[in-house]
Amino acid sequence: MPTVKITRELHFSSAHRVFNPEWTDERNNEVFGGCANPNWHGHDYRLFVTVEGSAKGDTGFVMNLQDLKNVVESRIIKDVDHRNINLEVSWMKGVIPSTENFIIEIWNRLDGEFPGGVKLSKLTLWETPRHYVEYEG
Amino acid sequence: MPTVKITRELHFSSAHRVFNPEWTDERNNEVFGGCANPNWHGHDYRLFVTVEGSAKGDTGFVMNLQDLKNVVESRIIKDVDHRNINLEVSWMKGVIPSTENFIIEIWNRLDGEFPGGVKLSKLTLWETPRHYVEYEG
Amino acid sequence: MPTVKITRELHFSSAHRVFNPEWTDERNNEVFGGCANPNWHGHDYRLFVTVEGSAKGDTGFVMNLQDLKNVVESRIIKDVDHRNINLEVSWMKGVIPSTENFIIEIWNRLDGEFPGGVKLSKLTLWETPRHYVEYEG
Amino acid sequence: MPTVKITRELHFSSAHRVFNPEWTDERNNEVFGGCANPNWHGHDYRLFVTVEGSAKGDTGFVMNLQDLKNVVESRIIKDVDHRNINLEVSWMKGVIPSTENFIIEIWNRLDGEFPGGVKLSKLTLWETPRHYVEYEG
Amino acid sequence: MPTVKITRELHFSSAHRVFNPEWTDERNNEVFGGCANPNWHGHDYRLFVTVEGSAKGDTGFVMNLQDLKNVVESRIIKDVDHRNINLEVSWMKGVIPSTENFIIEIWNRLDGEFPGGVKLSKLTLWETPRHYVEYEG
Amino acid sequence: MPTVKITRELHFSSAHRVFNPEWTDERNNEVFGGCANPNWHGHDYRLFVTVEGSAKGDTGFVMNLQDLKNVVESRIIKDVDHRNINLEVSWMKGVIPSTENFIIEIWNRLDGEFPGGVKLSKLTLWETPRHYVEYEG
Repeated sequence: MPTVKITRELHFSSAHRVFNPEWTDERNNEVFGGCANPNWHGHDYRLFVTVEGSAKGDTGFVMNLQDLKNVVESRIIKDVDHRNINLEVSWMKGVIPSTENFIIEIWNRLDGEFPGGVKLSKLTLWETPRHYVEYEG
Repeated sequence: MPTVKITRELHFSSAHRVFNPEWTDERNNEVFGGCANPNWHGHDYRLFVTVEGSAKGDTGFVMNLQDLKNVVESRIIKDVDHRNINLEVSWMKGVIPSTENFIIEIWNRLDGEFPGGVKLSKLTLWETPRHYVEYEG
Repeated sequence: MPTVKITRELHFSSAHRVFNPEWTDERNNEVFGGCANPNWHGHDYRLFVTVEGSAKGDTGFVMNLQDLKNVVESRIIKDVDHRNINLEVSWMKGVIPSTENFIIEIWNRLDGEFPGGVKLSKLTLWETPRHYVEYEG
Repeated sequence: MPTVKITRELHFSSAHRVFNPEWTDERNNEVFGGCANPNWHGHDYRLFVTVEGSAKGDTGFVMNLQDLKNVVESRIIKDVDHRNINLEVSWMKGVIPSTENFIIEIWNRLDGEFPGGVKLSKLTLWETPRHYVEYEG
Repeated sequence: MPTVKITRELHFSSAHRVFNPEWTDERNNEVFGGCANPNWHGHDYRLFVTVEGSAKGDTGFVMNLQDLKNVVESRIIKDVDHRNINLEVSWMKGVIPSTENFIIEIWNRLDGEFPGGVKLSKLTLWETPRHYVEYEG
Repeated sequence: MPTVKITRELHFSSAHRVFNPEWTDERNNEVFGGCANPNWHGHDYRLFVTVEGSAKGDTGFVMNLQDLKNVVESRIIKDVDHRNINLEVSWMKGVIPSTENFIIEIWNRLDGEFPGGVKLSKLTLWETPRHYVEYEG
């Protein structure tokens, strides 16, 4: 059976601060610039979740898109939307919230959560309209 | 010779109904929701066709983009644009027109149609501005 | 108090047929081309709803965006999404469903529906990724 | 001399909290939902600045786009990018940072700042990829 | 009869040089920077043509979009696409090809060219993905 | 350590002419059409540069995005922006400036230029809003 990938885009808006707590303010400012602002800044994240599998014979679906959306909303969006990533997201505690670290933790929370032989294939996370990160586990 | 991929975006607007003819209306509605509406609905599909090959020495082209467009228009667009996918597209007869099944059939009609050692590499099909499917054969 | 406009984008996917029922098939085909296909075609419509008013002192809002979205969903989206505009939308009965006529009828259903001195200001309706219509009442 | 409008898009990423300091937490949460989160959230704002004037005979320009960008960067972007709008932006102190109030204050800081008879014509501010506000003074 | 605006997007790719032939190279470089490069540079222009009129009773159309496209292609696109605006476009001879001057000349060539009481309403011309000009005659 | 990819979008506007200098004008026109225009044409290129590596423990970054941007600007953008690719770009001399050949030369200039174990992973180059090329070395 041929493998098809399906991708759903979702959004969330969060505050964060990218800094190393073991460093001085000077060093954080030098390395992270405005991203280390102690008063926070934020982004409209765009998350593309790609899963793969074979199209089922009775539906033609790899999986129902509404189910895909429900998994991502319950595992990710409800925790991070209109939240402070450093202070309020339990699964980001102790992690520097760079886009790179963030996508790895999102992967870890979504991997294995899709039913019926559907596999998480790729995540793409836009932090601004100019750059994004990709992760394939 | 290095391999380069080139991608052309094309559009078409179609009606369809996603349902399993062997199921009751209740079951179709339960599984497919509004997509199973017997009165049809439709989409502005965006199709990205990616082919790969080496850049020819005398042109610098993997293949001429106009030729690429012509192949896709004659094999796909003329059959599906402003058409009903269930009723009017011969190569979709008997196939549940999910985006997944649709992209597989589009692949089957494009694969092997490009001249000069150019290989179909990937198809990406957006059904709405929020989700898409990908297929690599 | 200064007037500010706020705009929310919403989506829906519908089938339709653009034709004049008083004309022959030949004439319809000549004037409307593929849009007159008796087997329907469809679009992913993008609707931008703009309202205007003054920012309230206690909220800073012209109106709450969730309320704006609720009005449009209950008055428009639930009637047209995954529907056949010609057959299933009561307020489009007897109207040729060109984008122009469609936006006028959407205006008529939204005008006057916003509370607290908020005025419908403009509608923009994209039928394909290449063209749109605008209406200001 | 005919009047032409020119528009430049600029970006910034900020944190904010939309709440009324005279209200209880319950009331703020009821009216503003997640936007009132005391731990902040944030956005990638996209600001479109439109100015108008006649095209000068010796340059063909209403105004040089680099000059336009410089004005907006020095008057707005350097104050708000990677900043907390509530805590760090002097010209937003005491103002509920709704998108509506924000665009009015941006207008007040840009109006009259363009040389050579060029007039600020319109501001458009996207707070998320789904909604924006417009202000014309 | 209510007035509706319809807009069609078209593209073209051109080379140009923005400079004042009465100035020295130094002065041109100072004012126009890289835009004055004697060896040319170029853009993928995106042109949005907006016309307005009432929706006709027998079609529901302000005007047929294909006719709109045909007018713009024959009056504008065929002259400028894959052309050098300074050297090859007769109606730009003697005009500094700033975006502002360009849109005025495009207006002059489109105004009055639409049949059946349809009026040219607005032109929007993107020169890069970051800035555009608007003209309403 | 898991590998993450990060991508930054950059822009430049250039003129070029796609033709084979060993061919007659007739043959060039036949094969390349308007792209072979001796008076040049141009594009707003969009370049997406993807690098990959592991997220460093002390920053959470694969590499600093500002450093990534600096490499691409000094190695590519400053040479091609507002330039004529055929006449002014030393590393394109003698190369037919098709998008395919262009992306290979850009790769050759960026490959190996990133510090700290970061690897160039993919380039994507849009020449118009409708087509792009991809190269992975």
